[in-house]
Amino acid sequence: MPQEAKITNVEPLPSNEAKWIEFQKISWQDQTGKDRVWEAASRKTRGKSGVDAVAIATLLRHPKKKPSTIIILQYRPPVDAVCVEFPAGLVDASESPSDASVRELHEETGYKGKLKFISPTIVSDPGMSTANMQLATIEVELKEGDTEPEQALDDGEFIERVVVPLEELYTRLVELDKEGKRVDARLWHWAAGLEFARTML
Amino acid sequence: MPQEAKITNVEPLPSNEAKWIEFQKISWQDQTGKDRVWEAASRKTRGKSGVDAVAIATLLRHPKKKPSTIIILQYRPPVDAVCVEFPAGLVDASESPSDASVRELHEETGYKGKLKFISPTIVSDPGMSTANMQLATIEVELKEGDTEPEQALDDGEFIERVVVPLEELYTRLVELDKEGKRVDARLWHWAAGLEFARTML
Repeated sequence: MPQEAKITNVEPLPSNEAKWIEFQKISWQDQTGKDRVWEAASRKTRGKSGVDAVAIATLLRHPKKKPSTIIILQYRPPVDAVCVEFPAGLVDASESPSDASVRELHEETGYKGKLKFISPTIVSDPGMSTANMQLATIEVELKEGDTEPEQALDDGEFIERVVVPLEELYTRLVELDKEGKRVDARLWHWAAGLEFARTML
Repeated sequence: MPQEAKITNVEPLPSNEAKWIEFQKISWQDQTGKDRVWEAASRKTRGKSGVDAVAIATLLRHPKKKPSTIIILQYRPPVDAVCVEFPAGLVDASESPSDASVRELHEETGYKGKLKFISPTIVSDPGMSTANMQLATIEVELKEGDTEPEQALDDGEFIERVVVPLEELYTRLVELDKEGKRVDARLWHWAAGLEFARTML
């Protein structure tokens, strides 16, 4: 990367200028029949699948190396930091989430894998937004001597991929945080669940 | 609960009416020096800790029962569904995230526990919002004969708590999804990481 990304200005965004997200004023009746109001943010890009985004937990298998996964590092303006995330992306308008997960893994990491499983639709931050997603598990079988493939990034995408042995994932996230990067909550939870199983049960 | 919560109307929310969230127009310079714009949603409630919210992974230990955790079920207007989540809540203006996690666990579940660990600040959906959080691990030691404590809910809060043995958590989330509830992505990832460790490694 030639230089670090940075924020130059933050100002309130009028609703009528927003292209990607919108605000909803939700009127609802609670469990006692009382009328109430909730404010939520919503993506405008949701397609016919009804699912905004996919993320991918990759299982990289190699005859001589420890089972590993892939995390990506990219600058995210909303939090003004390089974030550490599972490979992920928005589902295209007429694409299935399963197809999107194989496509996004290939674009962001170069690896082509086999979809083993995809979660039901889960909600990203349901107190604040309508955003939803599915988590795919994709397996990549490597042979000895396979070299690291090329990423297939769009113009203007700056994404670094990192292959991490699963047993080191949690420790690596702790280190990346200490370096000033920001770990995505979903990736952190996945790694914390894995670590919890290894150490607390 | 006397009746089911429901949405009666959804309409665009003008920025100047929004009380809890706001839109930001973020001007930033990318890695090539190009000027770009990003749209993000932000909570207005962030206090001096700099952290919006906490969630709690509880470890319930009992002399005769399997190690368990607590999940909560509550209706969330942004996704018009009963959501399945870790106990969680916003950090008060002058409170520490550690204190908030012990307080929220008590309010939402009735259990008083000991904070074992709290994660660094992690970001909930960094492509779309500034929202951040910390994940606390709280241990509750029960003695034989301890009865289930009373919740300490605010007026207008309808929250059901469910104690689930950790080894059944993933399966329970799958079942709750099939019943039409919506699982929070972070809880799903934690349970999926735990299940991944049990079955794929």
